[in-house]
Amino acid sequence: MTDRLILTVAVLGGTGNLGPGLALRWSRAGYKVLIGSRKAEKAQRVAAELNQILGIDAISGMTNQEAAREADICVLTVNHTAHRSALESLKPALKGKILVDTTARIDFRDPRPPAPPSAARVAQDILGTEVAVAAAFQTVPASVLRKNLDDPLDMDVFVCSDEARAAKEAIRLAEGGGMRAFNAGGLENAIVAEGLVAMLLSMNKQYRSKTGTLRVVGITK
Amino acid sequence: MTDRLILTVAVLGGTGNLGPGLALRWSRAGYKVLIGSRKAEKAQRVAAELNQILGIDAISGMTNQEAAREADICVLTVNHTAHRSALESLKPALKGKILVDTTARIDFRDPRPPAPPSAARVAQDILGTEVAVAAAFQTVPASVLRKNLDDPLDMDVFVCSDEARAAKEAIRLAEGGGMRAFNAGGLENAIVAEGLVAMLLSMNKQYRSKTGTLRVVGITK
Repeated sequence: MTDRLILTVAVLGGTGNLGPGLALRWSRAGYKVLIGSRKAEKAQRVAAELNQILGIDAISGMTNQEAAREADICVLTVNHTAHRSALESLKPALKGKILVDTTARIDFRDPRPPAPPSAARVAQDILGTEVAVAAAFQTVPASVLRKNLDDPLDMDVFVCSDEARAAKEAIRLAEGGGMRAFNAGGLENAIVAEGLVAMLLSMNKQYRSKTGTLRVVGITK
Repeated sequence: MTDRLILTVAVLGGTGNLGPGLALRWSRAGYKVLIGSRKAEKAQRVAAELNQILGIDAISGMTNQEAAREADICVLTVNHTAHRSALESLKPALKGKILVDTTARIDFRDPRPPAPPSAARVAQDILGTEVAVAAAFQTVPASVLRKNLDDPLDMDVFVCSDEARAAKEAIRLAEGGGMRAFNAGGLENAIVAEGLVAMLLSMNKQYRSKTGTLRVVGITK
C-alpha cells in the first residue's frame, strides 16, 4: 500500500455485470487489475477480453483466492446470492486487506429495500477487524461503465465505511474510474446505498430507463 | 379534488423548519395554503409572516385539525418526535384525504438511518385505508426553499406511495414548488428516502455544507 504508482486491485467475482466495466476503467487509470472468479478459466477468458478492448496484456485472470492474496485492495462484485459464501471462503485471503463491497441484495424481478444489516455490514462481521470494509458502487449502472472509457461519468458514488483508509481508497478508485465520490458516513449508512438500488430500479421501471442513478448537489468537494 | 384551479393544501405542523418554505412556494404556485399548528395563534402568526413576504393575505393559520378538515391535500411537516401523536390526533380529520408525509425520524445530533417501518408506513398503518399516504420531501434542505421563490430548485424529490393518486398529487406539489419529482416506487421504498436524510447529514458534516441533496440522472421524465 505504500507505492501509489502500481497499486494492485482485485475484482472478485469480476466476470459478472459490474466487474468488467470497473476493471477496464481502473486498468486505464493505472491500477494493476486482477480479475477473480470461482473458476480460473472463466477469469482468464474475461481478462483476455478486457485486454483486447484496451490493446494491452496487463489484466490477469485467476481464482478469487489468488486475486485476493495478490492485491492491495479487493473489490467484491459477486452476485448478491453468492455474497455470504464468497466472503466465508475468502476470509483467510482477505486478512489485512481493504475490501470494497459493491453488493446490493436486491431481487431485480421484485426490487425492494433489503432489511438491515447491509451487505457491507455482513461482510465486516464475517471478516472481522482485520479487514477494513467500505461499501461503494451500489448505485452505479453497470451498462454505462464500458462506454467512453476516458470520459468522466455523470454519476456520483457513495462510500460508507467505519475505516478512514478504506473510505479513502474507495474514493480514489471511484475517481480513477471517472466517477465523483463522496464520503457518505459510517458503515451504518451502507443500508441506504443498498436500498437506493431498489428505489432506482423502481424509477427505471416507471420511466423506462436502465441507467437511472444519482448526483449530489449542494455540496462542494 | 375536482377543481384543479383552487386546490387547498394544509401544511400540518407548518410552523417548523420545512413547512413555511413549502407554504410560500405553494401559495405562489396558486394553491390555497392553510398553515396548521397545535395552537391556532402560532399558526396565525406564521401565516401572517408568510403573507407579508408575499404581499398577500391568502394564507390562513389555524389548528392542525381545522386545516386538515378544510384541505384537499394535507402535508405533514411536524417534528419527527411528534409524528405518531400528531397522526393519532388527526386521524378523524384526515379521513378521505391524501396525506403527504415529509417525516424523517432522524436525530440531527447523531444521524443514522432509522429502522423500518418508515415514518410514512407508520402513518399509513395508523390512518388505515381511508387515507392515501405518499412519502415525499424528506431530502429537501429547508433552508433553500425560502430563497428565489420563483426559480426552480436544484434538487429532485422522491415520491413513494402505494396509491397512484397520492403519488400524482405529491409530484404536482413538488413541481408547483419548483422541484422536479419522481415516482420512486411503493411505500416500501420510503425507508430509503428517510435513510437518505441520515446519509446527506453525514455528507454535509464531512464537507461542511448545510444544503446537500440529490439529483436524478440517467432518467428522462
